Amino acid sequence: MRENLNKGRNLNKGRNMTVNGLDVEALKDTCDLLTKEPDLGKAQFRIGNRWKTGGNNKVSVKGFFAAGEEQAHKSSLDFEADEPPALLGTDAGANPVEYLLTALSSCMTTSIVYHAAARGFHIESLESEFEGDLDIRGFLNLSEKVPKGYQQIRAVFKVNTDATEEEIAQLYQFSPVYSMVSASVPIEVKVIKV
Amino acid sequence: MRENLNKGRNLNKGRNMTVNGLDVEALKDTCDLLTKEPDLGKAQFRIGNRWKTGGNNKVSVKGFFAAGEEQAHKSSLDFEADEPPALLGTDAGANPVEYLLTALSSCMTTSIVYHAAARGFHIESLESEFEGDLDIRGFLNLSEKVPKGYQQIRAVFKVNTDATEEEIAQLYQFSPVYSMVSASVPIEVKVIKV
Repeated sequence: MRENLNKGRNLNKGRNMTVNGLDVEALKDTCDLLTKEPDLGKAQFRIGNRWKTGGNNKVSVKGFFAAGEEQAHKSSLDFEADEPPALLGTDAGANPVEYLLTALSSCMTTSIVYHAAARGFHIESLESEFEGDLDIRGFLNLSEKVPKGYQQIRAVFKVNTDATEEEIAQLYQFSPVYSMVSASVPIEVKVIKV
Repeated sequence: MRENLNKGRNLNKGRNMTVNGLDVEALKDTCDLLTKEPDLGKAQFRIGNRWKTGGNNKVSVKGFFAAGEEQAHKSSLDFEADEPPALLGTDAGANPVEYLLTALSSCMTTSIVYHAAARGFHIESLESEFEGDLDIRGFLNLSEKVPKGYQQIRAVFKVNTDATEEEIAQLYQFSPVYSMVSASVPIEVKVIKV
């Protein structure tokens, strides 16, 4: 979206400020532009999946649509998925519910960082641990009472910041993946200043 | 779970049959064991996340609990997450919502393959394409009317199998990630025999 934003950038010339590694001027310009031209908010993300054998399959991330145009990643992004031997796989990669925690943790982290930058909160470090409880009987359809997905997810964020724990805890709520997963799975989140 | 299952395996000696790359005898034994000892279904998966800068953070998949004991992956599994330049990142990895499609596609694929094997359906090949529509104004909190997560996800599976399209379409419903995501996002799925 930078190219589109260069038009409006002149207004803020010389005010190129970085917070949390983000150009907050560009972030503000993006918000202003999307308020004026809401259609530029439309994005589409895509992957392809090819099954190999048993629990092993391979994902290739494709090009995407954002900021009004088709875009490409600068390098190929491929991911092996597999189950461990305990679940009859060969452990050739992370399993699908580990990729779900990957998506969730990266999305909540990015949401905290971007929204902190927009508010002028400085983040020096941010680490988190996620764990999810799942009963395999759900997937195997052995009991209708057992949910197929995670029964609960717990996350602990350790953050070095000038914001309060409460202020940081407001920010992961903007996360798209948090929004999708928390609709069906209880997610318990702790934010601890370090 | 193989070790636990070896006890019961004698009953089926010589019947070591592989379908879709899976030892269906072990799969059946797993189901029998979990019916007798439901506590063995309890699993826990874990990741750690370390923020680097801006939209870039790194996930490390940790050890997990399954089949009644702590387990380790055979190799380290690390994933870079980042946003593309259009979203103010440096494109150092897939973005969080692309990891969500990774999780979803790998989970639906594995569910089809495992449940097909349990039913004696042979799968020769299985490929899929996923795309998800998302309005970035949700994440940026520019409109309360715009969902933060995907508004819709579409998936097409192309499968070479002796089952019917309808039979295959029953099987992804057992997927834990499908179960979690479809609770809040409409997922349109097509199964096409090739």
